[in-house]
Amino acid sequence: MEKKGKMMEKARVLSGMRPTGKLHLGNYLGALKNWLSLQERYECFYFLADWHALTSEYADTGPLKSYILDIGTDWLAAGLDPERCTLFIQSRVPEHAELHLLLSMITPLAWLERVPTYKEQQQELKEKDLSTYGFLGYPLLQTADIIIYKAHYVPVGVDQVPHVELSREIVRRFHYLYGKEVFPEPAALLTEIPKVPGTDGRKMSKSYDNAIYLSDPPEAIREKIRTMVTDPQRARRHDPGDPEVCPVFAFHKIYSAVAEIDRINQECRSAEIGCVECKQILSQNLLKEMQGFMERREYYVHRPDQVREILEEGSKRARRVARETMDEVREAMQIA
Amino acid sequence: MEKKGKMMEKARVLSGMRPTGKLHLGNYLGALKNWLSLQERYECFYFLADWHALTSEYADTGPLKSYILDIGTDWLAAGLDPERCTLFIQSRVPEHAELHLLLSMITPLAWLERVPTYKEQQQELKEKDLSTYGFLGYPLLQTADIIIYKAHYVPVGVDQVPHVELSREIVRRFHYLYGKEVFPEPAALLTEIPKVPGTDGRKMSKSYDNAIYLSDPPEAIREKIRTMVTDPQRARRHDPGDPEVCPVFAFHKIYSAVAEIDRINQECRSAEIGCVECKQILSQNLLKEMQGFMERREYYVHRPDQVREILEEGSKRARRVARETMDEVREAMQIA
Repeated sequence: MEKKGKMMEKARVLSGMRPTGKLHLGNYLGALKNWLSLQERYECFYFLADWHALTSEYADTGPLKSYILDIGTDWLAAGLDPERCTLFIQSRVPEHAELHLLLSMITPLAWLERVPTYKEQQQELKEKDLSTYGFLGYPLLQTADIIIYKAHYVPVGVDQVPHVELSREIVRRFHYLYGKEVFPEPAALLTEIPKVPGTDGRKMSKSYDNAIYLSDPPEAIREKIRTMVTDPQRARRHDPGDPEVCPVFAFHKIYSAVAEIDRINQECRSAEIGCVECKQILSQNLLKEMQGFMERREYYVHRPDQVREILEEGSKRARRVARETMDEVREAMQIA
Repeated sequence: MEKKGKMMEKARVLSGMRPTGKLHLGNYLGALKNWLSLQERYECFYFLADWHALTSEYADTGPLKSYILDIGTDWLAAGLDPERCTLFIQSRVPEHAELHLLLSMITPLAWLERVPTYKEQQQELKEKDLSTYGFLGYPLLQTADIIIYKAHYVPVGVDQVPHVELSREIVRRFHYLYGKEVFPEPAALLTEIPKVPGTDGRKMSKSYDNAIYLSDPPEAIREKIRTMVTDPQRARRHDPGDPEVCPVFAFHKIYSAVAEIDRINQECRSAEIGCVECKQILSQNLLKEMQGFMERREYYVHRPDQVREILEEGSKRARRVARETMDEVREAMQIA
């Protein structure tokens, strides 16, 4: 009976965010909306990966706590439901570090050195010294994060698939060495991550200073949209524009209704509509879409203790699961 | 007042043994006797480094538990006093793993790659696959082991000095990055490690199958000494021998009185004494010297629960200290 009950349970999903900045619309549309739909079908574990934040931010840890609170607030405002999913802070579950250490003993260095993102990120973040032992080991820490909850699925973009593949290899090696099947082999839940442009047309990113933040008040959002770049060929009001190269239009595709998108598409190409008006419509639609989010955010932003309490409770729940797994791990490895 | 009281406290020493085999006379004379004298002058933390054992024994963890019990028994038989020093098991204090992970974020890979023992040991233990992430990181785990107890001294042989030097560098880097002096810089307590020959004249070592174990009963020790190699030039009873090349004589220097050593030195060179008699004298002296140890060992070997209880109590005490340090570490690093 027990077994049957277990088999009826939902499959588990694990995902995390590094608290290295405030969330912006790119994060919301790319990850958070996906998390929302996942909580309907899976048992979800979502965590604030503060230890992972240290891989790049070890020299500037001051803002960690406020980012944790800020992102936790966004999560709740977005509608993540602490009754249905476990929202927690990585460092509150030190068992992740223990499993990471144990896995480090069975993980060939070469497996980590060949993870494609390793060299890529060192190149990308040249201004930071990422040649640390911890940075090399971060996909191993991710493996520990995933398998300590026996997660079945990990929602990732295509560039992160090698990380999930690594965790599968480590799981297989663990089972081979210790002769006990403790973990499911986690599978990538491939997620199409929409390309959300920033106000300058490049990819929205904190480091480009082109982001619309989830914590921006409506006036700030209106102002950011008002000054967004558009089709650079459309210098004057009566020049026809090309919506396909205009970041404002990219946002219309997300926030406006199909009929309106079609109309703007035509009227831009024929210079019937000007950028000022087009942006006003976008502001209106975007703010209408985000209204519920903003109201809930307003609620939680004035109740930081409630947000913290939810994260603490979630961390306790996560820790119970992690501890059970570690009991099995130690037994399989025959550790004292 | 509090401060003055603290300053009067004994300096702290930390040392560990990997539970990868039973202890032999080489371990006793090389490390354990030194630990005994250290407990008189310092506040000592001695631990069974079972996580470190995994760096080389990850594929064969079966004997870990019995080695832990066996070595714990030897420690108590040798006279380590759980009232004066903290005897504990590394894996019982998972805070070591947490500190190891945090330190990994600030430790340049190159610092670990250049530790001299890294390449050496990989060469020496060719039959094992030591190209793991954990093996590269083991001096970092040692650093965590040391500084989590704020140890001032680490007794080491000359080959381990670079490990203590690494831990000093990491401490300095931590203080520089986080602007708080949490740890003393640990210093090497250079220990002359006597070269104890095995029964075949090579260095006594489990892997050479030439060891006299602390758990060997007197008859087994007598038999091992009876069949020990001696000066290979002394083929017959009436041939004169050279004590300086004879491993039996090396043991006389440890276990016999000065007058007797002098007499044997002379009588061997003049063939007045034969190897059989010389070995009988050694057996007698060695067993007399080890009598107290053997009696205490006999006591504890029949009380495994008492040994386990002492290690559990020590682990709890160690953990209290480790937790306090981790509170300071998290505060310095501004972790949630």
